[in-house]
Amino acid sequence: MNQQYPSQLFGKAVSELTGLPGVGQKTALRLALFLLRQDKEKVERFTNAINTMRHDIKYCRVCHNICDTDICPICANPHRDATTVCVVENVQDVMAVENTQQFNGLYHVLGGVISPMDGIGPNDIEIDSLVKRVEDGGINEVILALSSTMEGDTTNFYIYRKLAKYDIRLSVIARGISVGDELEYTDEVTLGRSIINRMPFEGK
Amino acid sequence: MNQQYPSQLFGKAVSELTGLPGVGQKTALRLALFLLRQDKEKVERFTNAINTMRHDIKYCRVCHNICDTDICPICANPHRDATTVCVVENVQDVMAVENTQQFNGLYHVLGGVISPMDGIGPNDIEIDSLVKRVEDGGINEVILALSSTMEGDTTNFYIYRKLAKYDIRLSVIARGISVGDELEYTDEVTLGRSIINRMPFEGK
Repeated sequence: MNQQYPSQLFGKAVSELTGLPGVGQKTALRLALFLLRQDKEKVERFTNAINTMRHDIKYCRVCHNICDTDICPICANPHRDATTVCVVENVQDVMAVENTQQFNGLYHVLGGVISPMDGIGPNDIEIDSLVKRVEDGGINEVILALSSTMEGDTTNFYIYRKLAKYDIRLSVIARGISVGDELEYTDEVTLGRSIINRMPFEGK
Repeated sequence: MNQQYPSQLFGKAVSELTGLPGVGQKTALRLALFLLRQDKEKVERFTNAINTMRHDIKYCRVCHNICDTDICPICANPHRDATTVCVVENVQDVMAVENTQQFNGLYHVLGGVISPMDGIGPNDIEIDSLVKRVEDGGINEVILALSSTMEGDTTNFYIYRKLAKYDIRLSVIARGISVGDELEYTDEVTLGRSIINRMPFEGK
């Protein structure tokens, strides 16, 4: 049902809020009424933060991660291992890998994966700049950390072909059963792959 | 865990989004990344709609509902019955009653209910202006449509005492078992009240 609001200004705000992902008519109404109850200064701070982010955010010249400077804090950090580059799809994935605290190298954010269905080809994502980074030297290993989907695999293969001629190690993150998962609930493709890619038992 | 973001502008936007009701760290992150991917114009339209709403919205001089003019479309509508006034807590409740399409009178939005626990007294909500409306004449019936809570009941009683001396009908919306509810799952207070307030069976 299309709700009629007593104020067009209110209706417009609700309709804009409905544009957010996961926000339906009811949630948008609740958010609009919440914002209406806040101090004007608070609402301005809220909208300013969003506008400033959208207008002033930069992308690292080296790895294309979001940042406030030309080079992101990770690339600029002298304590990180600049010889190892982890290739990820997007900014969230950088955060996900960072949260594991298991990686001390640098990143390369592709900004997407090759997906002919969505009209995204190799030139629409940051593959050329990755090849350039490898070409420029100083990199020993490139780790492919894309999602285990058809698009991810296609992108992995494309990057593999592009980087094959360089003298670097090219690896892909391990795929298998998630830690804590029960075997009987694991899908057969994952289980099959994890049997094929079995590892020596280290008794740890 | 407090996530570290590679951009302070981004972190600030996420933190502002976390201030919205029902939006946690993960949702805020998703919303911020979504907004980052949108056109600058779209993000500006979004924030403008919210700011304009907060700054330019008006409250009806008569009923205190939100509107864009001095008098809200409901109060200004000559086809509505100006002799009956429905008292509600807030703007959502006006929408809820309007959606029933069972009421053709006017409203009076209190802007809250009396709640000593939250420090809200009778003077913090629009009770005086309701008494003034009744005093000015032309109103035959006031319907109290507040939530069935202790605060709602307290407010009902306060309004009852304030309006007792005027020659009007004062009614309260029926409370009882929700349409479609099964008896065995209805709480005892509601069931008890609905027995006490039983109505003649009209065989319709």
